[in-house]
Amino acid sequence: MGLLLETIGKIVPVSEDWRRKASDYILTLTMPPWALGRLLDLAVDLAGMRETLYPEISRKRILLFAGDHGITEENVSPSPKEVTAQMIGNFVSGHAGINVLGGRNGAEISVIDMGVDADLSHYGDQILHRKIRYGTANFAKGPAMSYNEALASIEIGIRTALEFGDTTDVFGTGDMGIGNTSPSSAILSVFRHCSVAETVGMGAGLATERIAHKIAVIERGIALNQPDYNDPLDVLSKVGGLEIGGIAGAILGAASLRKPVLVDGFISGAGALIASKLCPVCVDYMIFAHRSAEPGHVWMSELLQKEPLLDLGFRLGEGTGAAMAMPLLDAAAAVLKDMATFQSAAVTQSEVQI
Amino acid sequence: MGLLLETIGKIVPVSEDWRRKASDYILTLTMPPWALGRLLDLAVDLAGMRETLYPEISRKRILLFAGDHGITEENVSPSPKEVTAQMIGNFVSGHAGINVLGGRNGAEISVIDMGVDADLSHYGDQILHRKIRYGTANFAKGPAMSYNEALASIEIGIRTALEFGDTTDVFGTGDMGIGNTSPSSAILSVFRHCSVAETVGMGAGLATERIAHKIAVIERGIALNQPDYNDPLDVLSKVGGLEIGGIAGAILGAASLRKPVLVDGFISGAGALIASKLCPVCVDYMIFAHRSAEPGHVWMSELLQKEPLLDLGFRLGEGTGAAMAMPLLDAAAAVLKDMATFQSAAVTQSEVQI
Repeated sequence: MGLLLETIGKIVPVSEDWRRKASDYILTLTMPPWALGRLLDLAVDLAGMRETLYPEISRKRILLFAGDHGITEENVSPSPKEVTAQMIGNFVSGHAGINVLGGRNGAEISVIDMGVDADLSHYGDQILHRKIRYGTANFAKGPAMSYNEALASIEIGIRTALEFGDTTDVFGTGDMGIGNTSPSSAILSVFRHCSVAETVGMGAGLATERIAHKIAVIERGIALNQPDYNDPLDVLSKVGGLEIGGIAGAILGAASLRKPVLVDGFISGAGALIASKLCPVCVDYMIFAHRSAEPGHVWMSELLQKEPLLDLGFRLGEGTGAAMAMPLLDAAAAVLKDMATFQSAAVTQSEVQI
Repeated sequence: MGLLLETIGKIVPVSEDWRRKASDYILTLTMPPWALGRLLDLAVDLAGMRETLYPEISRKRILLFAGDHGITEENVSPSPKEVTAQMIGNFVSGHAGINVLGGRNGAEISVIDMGVDADLSHYGDQILHRKIRYGTANFAKGPAMSYNEALASIEIGIRTALEFGDTTDVFGTGDMGIGNTSPSSAILSVFRHCSVAETVGMGAGLATERIAHKIAVIERGIALNQPDYNDPLDVLSKVGGLEIGGIAGAILGAASLRKPVLVDGFISGAGALIASKLCPVCVDYMIFAHRSAEPGHVWMSELLQKEPLLDLGFRLGEGTGAAMAMPLLDAAAAVLKDMATFQSAAVTQSEVQI
């Protein structure tokens, strides 16, 4: 528990002072007031996190946490569990979606094995070997993992972020784990105190007629395990996932470094919920990259009061949404750094300010 | 009229065959079916335009058309008309919004003086000098320009796109012209057969209490000039703008080259409407880059059946929204080019296809 508590102890709110400075400065730039909308909101956010008008954004890294899920025994995913391990091979070869989109958008990808149900040692240092166990247990029949394993997953996430802290300006989260929309829906339902039906979608493409079954399985898991929503580690251990814990930890780690973290889609949102319950202030450092096509994502966005930057109908995970949002951070920082002011460019300022 | 007719004669629909090939190929890539949503739609669009699975997107150019507007006499903008010419200086110096965002997203910027109400000859070859007249006339008192001037503005737009055709893979449109939301609202109202009140917003930041005045001025202009919505050149000449004609022409030119054109916001949307009325098929080559904060933009999107890629609350123009959408085209092309297939990566395909 030491590292978790120490990390939480270091997380402080973003600087309101630097947010105000950035806001005031932006109003002197050569454009109608706030004419670049959300890009300017983002610039203000970055200035507040980094305590500077000129936040450095160039070194980008996506932490892609992978793990398997016992719940796949219940036939809740259209893909077999083996795909998780197969996709690790695809990441290492550099031809999965996240490699392509991360590459295009200047992000390094680090793959962390948190609990894939296969021996991945042959990948050597091409991935980070942090396996806690060979997949979670089936949470429809008992807790997904022990309390200590849940804690370990979060602390590994923290440690991973800290490890890359010196070489990373902005983090992104990513996930790989067949079946992991089920624990994510479970976590969301518990924290939102809502019916599971409101939080479940097709995941990786489950046929519509099987979604009712998926809902019933998750309902059963929650009823059986009785996760205590006042204890995020209890929720994570009973109905969560190892990669979800890793994501929660990475967010806490990034926040403790005062660095922005682009939260990918639905699975990352579940990690973000866990992180926010452990330390509400860490939400200051989260940027919701995109609106997932998974319908429950909108509730995550609402609970954390984070409007996603993009809405492209993604439902791939891996950090692909986080990768696509990276250029927006670059652009926001560039506006602060490179745009002329009305004075420097000798442009007449409009009469109205809003 | 020769160049316009010749250009229209060259515009053909995108290839349904290549669209289908791209669609089929995408379903073999290592991800759940259509899990990258709109990025995959975009990939299909690009394949159809370029007739290849591997569309080249690397050379990007934003054509930024500038012109002044007599309607500013009516006090419809919070900024003085002089700002148009001042901003040309800012573009040339490289520190306006579009320079910063174009630069970040790999786009060259070409500024075309279509009708700025100032002598800009001192900029030499830093801008393209295509001035048709020193600003339009006040369309609340008579036609904005002659029919021949409207035609000339479109043909200059076409010629500009053709000129850069050999060195450009994807075009973007941009505009600069104080007062130009007024002609854009007028054009939209005429083509949508709707009340002006539905198409008018704050533009560059007009105070709310003055919007009713702006509406009244535009209504007066339409009532006085009686533009014929069956003749887009008549509409452009009576209530349009020189830069709007340039944008319309650039879209036609790009379409005749079978190249994608990212349509920026509200002003570019007005140009897109004119182009679509001259040649409905050219719409195939348009990509709406972003949803403008100007409320009428949603109707342009509806009329042309183009859902914008981004929604960031921009209302700056200059092509800034087009610049921000460039990375999405890069990413779409990269998915086609670089992602592994289920077979090549030895990943098991999910059981369900949608």
